[in-house]
Amino acid sequence: MFIEEVRDMYDAEQRLTKALPKLAEESTTPELKAAFESHLGETETHITRLEQIFGMFDRKAQTDTCKGMKGIISEGEDILDEDTDPWIKDAAIIAAAQKAEHYEIAAYGTLRAWARILGRQDVEQLVEFTLEEEKKADEKLNGIASRLNARAASVRG
Amino acid sequence: MFIEEVRDMYDAEQRLTKALPKLAEESTTPELKAAFESHLGETETHITRLEQIFGMFDRKAQTDTCKGMKGIISEGEDILDEDTDPWIKDAAIIAAAQKAEHYEIAAYGTLRAWARILGRQDVEQLVEFTLEEEKKADEKLNGIASRLNARAASVRG
Repeated sequence: MFIEEVRDMYDAEQRLTKALPKLAEESTTPELKAAFESHLGETETHITRLEQIFGMFDRKAQTDTCKGMKGIISEGEDILDEDTDPWIKDAAIIAAAQKAEHYEIAAYGTLRAWARILGRQDVEQLVEFTLEEEKKADEKLNGIASRLNARAASVRG
Repeated sequence: MFIEEVRDMYDAEQRLTKALPKLAEESTTPELKAAFESHLGETETHITRLEQIFGMFDRKAQTDTCKGMKGIISEGEDILDEDTDPWIKDAAIIAAAQKAEHYEIAAYGTLRAWARILGRQDVEQLVEFTLEEEKKADEKLNGIASRLNARAASVRG
């Protein structure tokens, strides 16, 4: 079950490495573009950590289709196709990205708990690093969204 | 954009009302069964609140396929089909449910922020009630998972 979830996330993170450059490209706010570019680097690190975890259980790294992330990304792509005001689009892109982040926060939270039951502190530590980075990425998006919303409200005001 | 997201969640919550009874049925731990049953009641309230929100914007309540939740639920159904130890299955069911909760936490967080920009405090308040219930449901699952894991570890130990 643990390895199945690792395979699921190995697929999810690889899907994200393809989605993040599109999100960066379609974002207007420079701060948002930069956030996606920096999270792409982190995502690559998360993939490497999952590969380390496969190794720690003497398993070959392989993916299992992550239907949850597939749905979330497909929903995000629909947003990218929409023709709307740049700031509304940026707000919608942030919303889509936060769904992906929260999916990962839930999944890595589970993997951390399971690593603990398996008595694998080494694995737990690796999962913890990734979990903290996902949480920080989500908080960063929260910050960008507030600033964007404050600007939008002052324009409207 | 706000109404589109409300339609998305209107679909997501309806999918959940169909999925929750299956999760309750397949759970072994009584505490977990009870948690899903009580969350079903809350989910019905969330649907009513979304209908109120449609009304507040003079819109007809209608759904828009929520691909994210569809993927998460389909992933959860695959778990229900697996034949494994009851406690492992319960742990996997909790993991699947927490992905759904986190998806909703991200989505309602976005709706709350957007209601604020639109200057609709009445809507913001309704979204806030639901958001708090989703967060509490996630924390409750965290608690059940820890107790389940502690028992599993003591059996193993």
